[in-house]
Amino acid sequence: MNANAERPGSWRVRAQQLVSYEVRIREHVFRPDRADVLEIGSGRRRFVVVDHAVDLLHGAGIRAYFDHHGVESTVLTVRADESAKDFGTAARIVEALDAFGLARRREPLIVVGGGVLTDIVGLVASLYRRGTPFVRVPTTLVGLVDAGVGAKTGVNFNGHKNRLGTYAPAALTLLDRFFLATLARRHVSNGIAEILKLALIKDARLFDLLEQHGRRLLDEKFQGVTPAGDRAAVAVLHAATEGMLEELEPNLWETELERSVDYGHTFSPTIEMRALPSLLHGEAVCVDMALTTVVAHHRGLLTEHQRDRVFAVMSALELPTWHPLLEPDILAGALQDTVRHRDGQQRVPLPVGIGDVTFVNDITQAELEAATAVQRTLAPSPPLPFP
Amino acid sequence: MNANAERPGSWRVRAQQLVSYEVRIREHVFRPDRADVLEIGSGRRRFVVVDHAVDLLHGAGIRAYFDHHGVESTVLTVRADESAKDFGTAARIVEALDAFGLARRREPLIVVGGGVLTDIVGLVASLYRRGTPFVRVPTTLVGLVDAGVGAKTGVNFNGHKNRLGTYAPAALTLLDRFFLATLARRHVSNGIAEILKLALIKDARLFDLLEQHGRRLLDEKFQGVTPAGDRAAVAVLHAATEGMLEELEPNLWETELERSVDYGHTFSPTIEMRALPSLLHGEAVCVDMALTTVVAHHRGLLTEHQRDRVFAVMSALELPTWHPLLEPDILAGALQDTVRHRDGQQRVPLPVGIGDVTFVNDITQAELEAATAVQRTLAPSPPLPFP
Repeated sequence: MNANAERPGSWRVRAQQLVSYEVRIREHVFRPDRADVLEIGSGRRRFVVVDHAVDLLHGAGIRAYFDHHGVESTVLTVRADESAKDFGTAARIVEALDAFGLARRREPLIVVGGGVLTDIVGLVASLYRRGTPFVRVPTTLVGLVDAGVGAKTGVNFNGHKNRLGTYAPAALTLLDRFFLATLARRHVSNGIAEILKLALIKDARLFDLLEQHGRRLLDEKFQGVTPAGDRAAVAVLHAATEGMLEELEPNLWETELERSVDYGHTFSPTIEMRALPSLLHGEAVCVDMALTTVVAHHRGLLTEHQRDRVFAVMSALELPTWHPLLEPDILAGALQDTVRHRDGQQRVPLPVGIGDVTFVNDITQAELEAATAVQRTLAPSPPLPFP
Repeated sequence: MNANAERPGSWRVRAQQLVSYEVRIREHVFRPDRADVLEIGSGRRRFVVVDHAVDLLHGAGIRAYFDHHGVESTVLTVRADESAKDFGTAARIVEALDAFGLARRREPLIVVGGGVLTDIVGLVASLYRRGTPFVRVPTTLVGLVDAGVGAKTGVNFNGHKNRLGTYAPAALTLLDRFFLATLARRHVSNGIAEILKLALIKDARLFDLLEQHGRRLLDEKFQGVTPAGDRAAVAVLHAATEGMLEELEPNLWETELERSVDYGHTFSPTIEMRALPSLLHGEAVCVDMALTTVVAHHRGLLTEHQRDRVFAVMSALELPTWHPLLEPDILAGALQDTVRHRDGQQRVPLPVGIGDVTFVNDITQAELEAATAVQRTLAPSPPLPFP
């Protein structure tokens, strides 16, 4: 702390917060011989938040795991989807924590569920007594490759996606692809959308993998039913995790608002919230990527061939490339809110070829309307089963 | 980010957040020739949250200030006291921010009010789009010397004080003692309690100042009606601010849970919440300090003379030194919750003489009951007008 010599009665406080967290690919995390989940913290009890659907499928195994390790577990089951991603759900978890009597630092919360639930529990963990550690076990593909590896927490509020949130990474995140075995096919697609995002703006090799093996990954749900499918699943999850972390680490608090991982997240927050509950997060992101792929093509940033490859991969992955909400006034409102979120400038990431990115600040309404018209013609007809 | 060479598929993310904020003693901050309030941020509009009572007294001047500087101000008036320090109040502010359409970083929120309001708005600012800057203008003495200088934000939840919160200091805090001119006498006492806390655990000279001039500061409300009162007001506010910042800066995120500034905050959170709305924060802290002063005396940490000086100063400052809620089961419950907050240990700060501190982990129920019995006999009779 420096008292300001030139201005008596003024002090400048400076402090550094060191944040360190681990993301670990680990298979069968609740098998009794695994110790990862209990690696953080001390004490012989844990509060565990488990998604309702996951509890039906894996609840007995999860409880047996803690019993096996002599740890008293209190399991709270939560129904978590985008429509329930609100402060009310967070508040119910807080009340249960009070009843449990959580010690502030040595009894980390454990959350087992999709990205929505890990976001909510992350927010609760960061607010409860101003911060308590947590361990994250994502059980959906979006959770594994997106929500589960970063530092962002949040809930929707007042009709806006993640309007309230914090930066608070889990001390340890365990990525276990075997949870995906029971994931609905549509939710596998949904997660691959975020992998595709990363491929488009930074990793041409990852795009090639998705182009070659995407359909197989979807069919096999990353379970490695065939040797080729297994190799692809391992390679894709590894590349996606490492790529995301490379992007996030130097900008963990989003000091820099030009973020390549914001690709597909310019128009999608509004579209996703307006479409609730019909579009999943990754689907909304894909609709946004399809639009901005056309914009990029119109600007000469990628060739027609590249554009068509992108649309072909999206369709092969059973992701929507068009949506009726792509109306002029909705796009205008979405861009306006994103401009506020990006502090007054568009900062729209656009793909450059496949695997690179640029940022633009001059997207016009006419350009968007022209692009959506083209986008509609490129979308498969009849449309995909998901509205 | 380090991929773990020995464990493929594991990454350790490391990042440093640099936090820097300024606390500035400044008089008449809304006088037209002052520019401090607008120093942070850019753009020609500001969202200003003003305490209801402050708005009645100073609202016209505050609005005129922004007009004078050509800044469009949107003022939201909020009734903020401990009973309204909840998520509902925070949510109403968030809704108003959405309606305002706040840009994420260049339009800092401005809050003008007491510690309760600055805590709530601090929480809103840290959650809104995961963090937007804010400027803090405390208008109460607790706000000036305690809530206003640190990094903690929060709201009460589920009957627990500040159960949900963050560490998020205002970019700039302006301490203007002239707001205290219209503060109720009881609220001046309330604020001096936090100054007394600091004096007792780290600053014997500040204690001497309070012993000599405390009553005059209360009578003059720090306005400097007399030259001696003015000198005392300036000296006490300067010492209190600097002392608090010295304690906070090296431990801004409370990595260390033995905090001397937690003195008076072991039993008081429970007592304050149980007594709502009858006890103010500083009053509850003073009741706690009176109890722990007796405990410290019983342990030989301070002399009877020192103990009696402390009680005499408390009474001269019109602060309560006893409360009917000091019942055995309430004290036991309060200590239990504080032990959870301090991660499994008591870590109770006790004064050593006047101006130093120690931490203990072995306070017993019998010791507390013996101390409260003595404490009751030391409290002035008839009791103070505040219940």
